[in-house]
Amino acid sequence: MPEPDAGAGAAATFRVRYPEIDRMGVAHHAAYFIWFEMGRTELMRQLGCSYRSVEDEHGLAFPVISAGASFLASARYDDWLEVRTRLSSVRGARVRFEYELYRREGGSPLATGFTEHAVVNKSGRPVRMPEELRERLRGGECKE
Amino acid sequence: MPEPDAGAGAAATFRVRYPEIDRMGVAHHAAYFIWFEMGRTELMRQLGCSYRSVEDEHGLAFPVISAGASFLASARYDDWLEVRTRLSSVRGARVRFEYELYRREGGSPLATGFTEHAVVNKSGRPVRMPEELRERLRGGECKE
Amino acid sequence: MPEPDAGAGAAATFRVRYPEIDRMGVAHHAAYFIWFEMGRTELMRQLGCSYRSVEDEHGLAFPVISAGASFLASARYDDWLEVRTRLSSVRGARVRFEYELYRREGGSPLATGFTEHAVVNKSGRPVRMPEELRERLRGGECKE
Amino acid sequence: MPEPDAGAGAAATFRVRYPEIDRMGVAHHAAYFIWFEMGRTELMRQLGCSYRSVEDEHGLAFPVISAGASFLASARYDDWLEVRTRLSSVRGARVRFEYELYRREGGSPLATGFTEHAVVNKSGRPVRMPEELRERLRGGECKE
Repeated sequence: MPEPDAGAGAAATFRVRYPEIDRMGVAHHAAYFIWFEMGRTELMRQLGCSYRSVEDEHGLAFPVISAGASFLASARYDDWLEVRTRLSSVRGARVRFEYELYRREGGSPLATGFTEHAVVNKSGRPVRMPEELRERLRGGECKE
Repeated sequence: MPEPDAGAGAAATFRVRYPEIDRMGVAHHAAYFIWFEMGRTELMRQLGCSYRSVEDEHGLAFPVISAGASFLASARYDDWLEVRTRLSSVRGARVRFEYELYRREGGSPLATGFTEHAVVNKSGRPVRMPEELRERLRGGECKE
Repeated sequence: MPEPDAGAGAAATFRVRYPEIDRMGVAHHAAYFIWFEMGRTELMRQLGCSYRSVEDEHGLAFPVISAGASFLASARYDDWLEVRTRLSSVRGARVRFEYELYRREGGSPLATGFTEHAVVNKSGRPVRMPEELRERLRGGECKE
Repeated sequence: MPEPDAGAGAAATFRVRYPEIDRMGVAHHAAYFIWFEMGRTELMRQLGCSYRSVEDEHGLAFPVISAGASFLASARYDDWLEVRTRLSSVRGARVRFEYELYRREGGSPLATGFTEHAVVNKSGRPVRMPEELRERLRGGECKE
């Protein structure tokens, strides 16, 4: 699914935490959206513009406006996972990320998902992504 | 969107908790999936077959196989919310629920979403929903 | 343990959520501190000065500076619990709350705990609790 | 505070997640207990007996019976933290861990804390820690 604005991808790795496991003995589905966010955070850091700096330096925020996931296989306590994230589009006041979750040792994905974000300023109004930031996200050249 | 297997709807109400608020000052999107689950729990209780009894008495579980949500307006700390849940289909080894999240005082929804579930037995194998349980879910006549 | 500044008590009730259950099949200990906070929120609302108004109207916050709990019996999924909260002291720039967690149907407590809070202003500096707010907390007469 | 049964220490590092931040803009106090648990998990792994193996191989669990923490300085979104954990005692059917939380770059601790655990078997009955496991925890010689 190549898109014109697609930027680079990045991976974040982590271990499944004890309280992320639910009564079925597997990771609760809500935790996956937190893991996806960790992937998004690492992708943006790798592109040189951390999400923290987007909020603190640029005065912008990327609230989630829609999200979805398919859960294909279970994650268990202490599993060492990797979330692979790609920026699939940056258009006007919208950003979309896509995610795949794997075990570190590989194999088929445990889950896939996406999030779509608005770009808003400090007063919560949608704004067009600043061209500079857009270029950074596209090109991975942004420096804080 | 009426569907043949659609069962009754139910509402669960709750207040937004302090740690559910994130750095933007609004409820984090992962929390919505937990609230949807509360709605699902209350719907099943209202239908007379609590999800706890599904697991403990029937030896079944309904793991989430896909989920999605649209976030339309922000929820804030201590807001009194209501999640309205409907069982939109029960087919073979699949169950689907749909959710709308409102402020107690009404207005337009803060979010809408869905979850699709497999029906599995204790060893995690997909099984057809037992006819008795299916009838209960459809008809709201189930007693524990 | 009666203390001079002790205010009224209040109870908050709720059901244990599915993701609050961990791999052992019982509620994770970190969840108890979130439940205690719900008790604190309800106590303050009952006293007529919601914690939201403390932050939004008074420009104060009560960050937790120490917390502790004893876990005496397990809480399970869908258990209907009640947290009973009392304000055990208000002194200068310090507030202390104490908690007991019960099943709705009674019995001995599942857990007991406490939190101690600083009183800080918007820039995070410790401040003496305003006399008006102190009186409200002590006397339960505060109105928003 | 050296104790006779004290074992080795270990550090776990991680970044503060977005939803761990609360309405005050700092990490919520309940998150610290989850971070302490991550430190405990890494300490046990380093000692050669992962907590997962304690549950899965030894048929034991270490439920928390008391916990406490002092919160000394705030942790913020994306901060890179390190939790240093030591096993402070292993006695009969009791284990105690102590924690210090730091920023990766050092400085004074952000928080200190402890957890005390029972040692129970699969039916939840307190049992004396098996001598073999006790030696492993003390000596760091345990292999899975």
